[in-house]
Amino acid sequence: MKIIIVGGVAGGMSAATRLRRLDEAAEIIVFERGHYVSFANCGLPYFVGGVIRDRDDLLLQTPESLGSRFGLDVRIDTEVVRIDRVAQTVSVRNLLTGAETVEGYDRLVLAAGATARSGASEDGTIPTHTLRTVDDVDHITAVLASKGAASAVVIGGGFIGLEAVENLVLRGVHVTLVQRGPQIFTPLDAEMAAPVLDRLRERGVDVRLSTTVSSASAPGVVTLSDGTTVPADLVIDASGVRPDLTLAERAGLRIGENGGIWVDGTQATSDPLIFAVGDGVEKTDAVDGSGALVTMAGLANRHGRSVADSIAGTPEQATPALGTGIVGIFGLTVALVGWNEKRLVAAGRAHRIAHTHPANHAGYYPGAQGMSIKLLIDAETDAILGAQIVGGAGVDKRIDVLAVAMAAGLSASALTRLELAYAPQYASAKDPINQLGYVADNLAQGASQSLQWHELDAARTNGAVLVDVRSAGEFAAGSIPGALNVSLDDLRARQDELPRVPLIVHCQVGQRGHTAARILTQHGFDVRNLDGGYRTWLAGTS
Amino acid sequence: MKIIIVGGVAGGMSAATRLRRLDEAAEIIVFERGHYVSFANCGLPYFVGGVIRDRDDLLLQTPESLGSRFGLDVRIDTEVVRIDRVAQTVSVRNLLTGAETVEGYDRLVLAAGATARSGASEDGTIPTHTLRTVDDVDHITAVLASKGAASAVVIGGGFIGLEAVENLVLRGVHVTLVQRGPQIFTPLDAEMAAPVLDRLRERGVDVRLSTTVSSASAPGVVTLSDGTTVPADLVIDASGVRPDLTLAERAGLRIGENGGIWVDGTQATSDPLIFAVGDGVEKTDAVDGSGALVTMAGLANRHGRSVADSIAGTPEQATPALGTGIVGIFGLTVALVGWNEKRLVAAGRAHRIAHTHPANHAGYYPGAQGMSIKLLIDAETDAILGAQIVGGAGVDKRIDVLAVAMAAGLSASALTRLELAYAPQYASAKDPINQLGYVADNLAQGASQSLQWHELDAARTNGAVLVDVRSAGEFAAGSIPGALNVSLDDLRARQDELPRVPLIVHCQVGQRGHTAARILTQHGFDVRNLDGGYRTWLAGTS
Ligand SMILES: Cc1cc2nc3c(=O)[nH]c(=O)nc-3n(C[C@H](O)[C@H](O)[C@H](O)COP(=O)(O)OP(=O)(O)OC[C@H]3O[C@@H](n4cnc5c(N)ncnc54)[C@H](O)[C@@H]3O)c2cc1C
Ligand SMILES: Cc1cc2nc3c(=O)[nH]c(=O)nc-3n(C[C@H](O)[C@H](O)[C@H](O)COP(=O)(O)OP(=O)(O)OC[C@H]3O[C@@H](n4cnc5c(N)ncnc54)[C@H](O)[C@@H]3O)c2cc1C
Ligand SMILES: CC(C)(COP(=O)(O)OP(=O)(O)OC[C@H]1O[C@@H](n2cnc3c(N)ncnc32)[C@H](O)[C@@H]1OP(=O)(O)O)[C@@H](O)C(=O)NCCC(=O)NCCS
Ligand SMILES: CC(C)(COP(=O)(O)OP(=O)(O)OC[C@H]1O[C@@H](n2cnc3c(N)ncnc32)[C@H](O)[C@@H]1OP(=O)(O)O)[C@@H](O)C(=O)NCCC(=O)NCCS
Repeated sequence: MKIIIVGGVAGGMSAATRLRRLDEAAEIIVFERGHYVSFANCGLPYFVGGVIRDRDDLLLQTPESLGSRFGLDVRIDTEVVRIDRVAQTVSVRNLLTGAETVEGYDRLVLAAGATARSGASEDGTIPTHTLRTVDDVDHITAVLASKGAASAVVIGGGFIGLEAVENLVLRGVHVTLVQRGPQIFTPLDAEMAAPVLDRLRERGVDVRLSTTVSSASAPGVVTLSDGTTVPADLVIDASGVRPDLTLAERAGLRIGENGGIWVDGTQATSDPLIFAVGDGVEKTDAVDGSGALVTMAGLANRHGRSVADSIAGTPEQATPALGTGIVGIFGLTVALVGWNEKRLVAAGRAHRIAHTHPANHAGYYPGAQGMSIKLLIDAETDAILGAQIVGGAGVDKRIDVLAVAMAAGLSASALTRLELAYAPQYASAKDPINQLGYVADNLAQGASQSLQWHELDAARTNGAVLVDVRSAGEFAAGSIPGALNVSLDDLRARQDELPRVPLIVHCQVGQRGHTAARILTQHGFDVRNLDGGYRTWLAGTS
Repeated sequence: MKIIIVGGVAGGMSAATRLRRLDEAAEIIVFERGHYVSFANCGLPYFVGGVIRDRDDLLLQTPESLGSRFGLDVRIDTEVVRIDRVAQTVSVRNLLTGAETVEGYDRLVLAAGATARSGASEDGTIPTHTLRTVDDVDHITAVLASKGAASAVVIGGGFIGLEAVENLVLRGVHVTLVQRGPQIFTPLDAEMAAPVLDRLRERGVDVRLSTTVSSASAPGVVTLSDGTTVPADLVIDASGVRPDLTLAERAGLRIGENGGIWVDGTQATSDPLIFAVGDGVEKTDAVDGSGALVTMAGLANRHGRSVADSIAGTPEQATPALGTGIVGIFGLTVALVGWNEKRLVAAGRAHRIAHTHPANHAGYYPGAQGMSIKLLIDAETDAILGAQIVGGAGVDKRIDVLAVAMAAGLSASALTRLELAYAPQYASAKDPINQLGYVADNLAQGASQSLQWHELDAARTNGAVLVDVRSAGEFAAGSIPGALNVSLDDLRARQDELPRVPLIVHCQVGQRGHTAARILTQHGFDVRNLDGGYRTWLAGTS
């Protein structure tokens, strides 16, 4: 059996090595148009920042090492330019010589990844860099070194944009981050993204929201859509990626509803001899089964391995994609899984929400760091639909726990029953995940009614009264305009002071508000607890 | 409704506060024989070590704070000495005055915890301290301060013993750790405990295995069972705990098969008006449904909350206990869940094992730390039966992921499909958990046959030949006696040098061994891969 693989990095090379382990006799050729295979795409931004110092560290394998260990025929600087499905051949061009040859296949694997979106500058006058390949990084570091570049514009505040910003700042570059929409890092909901914006600005990043870049007004100067100019010795376009469909479209392979190569659960395309994996393909969304473009290395590696199993005759059905993701930005960890509130609202899907602000470990043990968690829950089934976490240490752990719970189909209330490892330097006896479960459970059981930060104004317009149950000191230090202050510990005694109208109680994070709501409900009041408390409200309205 | 709660810490106070939130009208009395309630038991060792500096940080609540916020009637220095089930009363003694009174109940909750085992010194001549209460810690710190204690003996190398050792060393005390059995930290299997022992000895702890303390031969000197003497200005007995059955036994409540108070899934004892939670009760083991004594704060808190729900009329069935646990020792994190190999062997339960030695995050990103993972898998169902992890950063995350997977009933092979959050500073594109899944999956599918470190000698005696597929340099730096060395990259070319007998291949951690095994198997050899490689073998045979 002769297998040809297009693309020699995450998906392609994982397929190749696994295929070899399954089949010593197969002929396996990997074509890579770049000069490097098996490189650490995800490390590229950190090489720009000097965090990863040795460029060789980015190169996990070479054609030689893959040849000697796995008997792979890896051909770099070689682009596959055409697929002839009838003849079962690909045409390949040696990019150094220009020579074109034809190679037959029994099975073909497309792992060509995604391409960076371009055209971020309206008039095309700005020379932008993308950040996808080793070559890109060589160019960027060359610009930084030669010009002694002092300023940069990064277009797009997504995963790669944020990493680019952090690493440029690490190199002492002044960075302007230009974001088309009104919110940074759009995978999050607005109130969860607020601390990210704060952190960027604290570190001196000039963040421009609802803005695009227009033109290069002079060398090293860029004009933005609002007419202002910003210095830009370097412009990095991180405005997004799209599946690379060049080969697939030309070959007439089916394209999915969201613009990725369509594959079935075994990674087979509409041509049963052609398979595809990685950033180029459309996955199945875990929440609603729709087509999903999730361009993450974990999925590319996983599907790379499983496409080898498919080809070797032991196919397995792919599990749907959750879209678990994480990014670090100036000491803040931002992580998410599944759907966000914006998407649930847009889809009209009934949901519940829980916000908490726990510490990563027991507060009595020194060094605890805070985080904010948002959980999205199916209103009918109590299923976990998504989560977002922003904070310090321990965020990565909690998103993984939630991702596993979601994948396993655990309900939000079942989070209360997870038996997580506890010692004071690692967690709390009630882990943040258990507490999140308690909040969710109270909503599911009707023990609590909550209100979201963005529902507060309407509720008050309709006559609800807001009661801040924090201490007088906390209230004085900052409060929601117009709130009454009756501290939780005084609530039973002072309940007669409260009007007999719908009440909204709140505290700092939601926890005392919950106890307050339980007390007042049982004393006959109509009460809702402001979800996530003052902190979430502040983030949402900032 | 009048509810009496015996014990005012993890289980008892969690029950009390939740009960109040569910029922404003209930009369809730909490009796605590100590002087403190709601204290951080788990922080006590760290106060000894000075990691937690402020003693008040250990006291999370006071009777006053619980009174004003939750309307609880909390009576400290008050011991419940008797239960009269017929009269539905308890007799309580004020430990300050000696006065005894009687208090009636509608529902009684026993949350009296466990008691430290004593009698660790054979002839009873050694004044030992336990480490369970704030008073204990006050005594210990007083000894350390007054005597300027320079030496200590800690009896028992379990969770609390290890924490005691670390914190005494932190205070500059020379510590002898005396362990009855041949292995430190018995919840682990031998090869997993080896690095713990190494770490203790590296830090100057005098660890005595298969030893007990015999007698106090002079003030400050203790004689051990092997006849040697060791300095001991202080002796801490951390040899274990047992459920405190004082009240339950006298009241004729049913005791479980393992010596804890028997409760049903709603935490009700054999008397439907009496409930029990926490260290004193027997849980249901998640692996085989037997009675389990798991004395962990998370379960005490969880069951404390749910017993309140039971009493308030919304009972929920408890989920079985996994026994998830974690302990930090001199920068090493040791974590586990479920059953270990020893227990599976003793129970005669067919199982598979996978050892891996991954890094916590991508190797190309600086600062990656290693860990060793052991997974126990049901040989018939592929269910996860247990796991052990020892290492640096990221151990706590992986044990939690495994605990959730186990609780959710995911198979070991399903670990391959978990979509965990990846960016290079947090994880790897194939997370250690995914890799563990791959190893398990290969075993389940028959793509790999493996051999455990303790099976090697027998296999070689029976004629198997050991082939070390690491590089010549690695081989020279240390190898298993008598192994042939043919490096993986030379294996195809040099296969004719190998004898046609059963082969055992190995590398450093198992990964290259796997590829080697796949190659040789397909070339007609009978091959097994030494699970966990040289590293696991070294740990097991050390
Ligand atoms: C800067 C950066 C940071 C990232 N950080 C993270 C992260 O932290 N976490 C995460 O999960 N993911 C991250 N990713 C995404 C991750 O790298 C991708 O999801 C993953 O690499 C996709 O694998 P793939 O095999 O589909 O494509 P790629 O790994 O991109 O490989 C595709 C290869 O195909 C080659 N190719 C394309 N067309 C042809 C052709 N016609 N002929 C020959 N060769 C061709 C390309 O040159 C390319 O090398 C990051 C990506 C980038 C660029
Ligand atoms: C030093 C130490 C470190 C620990 N570290 C960890 C850790 O890192 N992680 C973890 O998960 N667990 C840890 N634990 C275990 C954890 O603290 C217990 O599992 C948990 O506290 C059990 O809760 P409980 O309510 O059953 O008992 P406890 O919290 O022990 O409370 C029982 C209370 O009942 C009182 N009492 C007993 N009898 C009577 C009576 N007759 N009348 C009145 N009062 C009575 C006792 O004085 C005691 O205060 C640790 C324990 C100790 C001692
Ligand atoms: C590295 C790469 C070439 C794949 O090589 P690979 O050998 O398939 O993958 P790994 O090195 O992760 O090893 C995995 C194999 O080792 C096995 N393994 C891992 N640890 C093991 C252990 N302790 N014992 C036994 N086997 C082990 C696994 O089971 C798996 O084998 P299998 O697929 O046959 O089940 C490919 O993923 C790649 O090019 N990656 C770089 C690009 C990239 O991923 N970029 C995005 C992220 S930056
Ligand atoms: C602290 C203690 C008194 C229990 O008090 P508690 O109020 O029940 O528990 P917590 O402070 O954890 O708060 C949990 C409550 O807040 C709610 N909550 C937490 N965060 C919330 C948020 N952001 N929004 C709304 N509600 C929230 C939970 O739902 C839960 O309420 P519920 O039980 O009604 O569902 C008791 O556990 C104790 O004494 N602990 C110390 C001893 C101990 O545990 N030792 C062992 C470990 S060291």
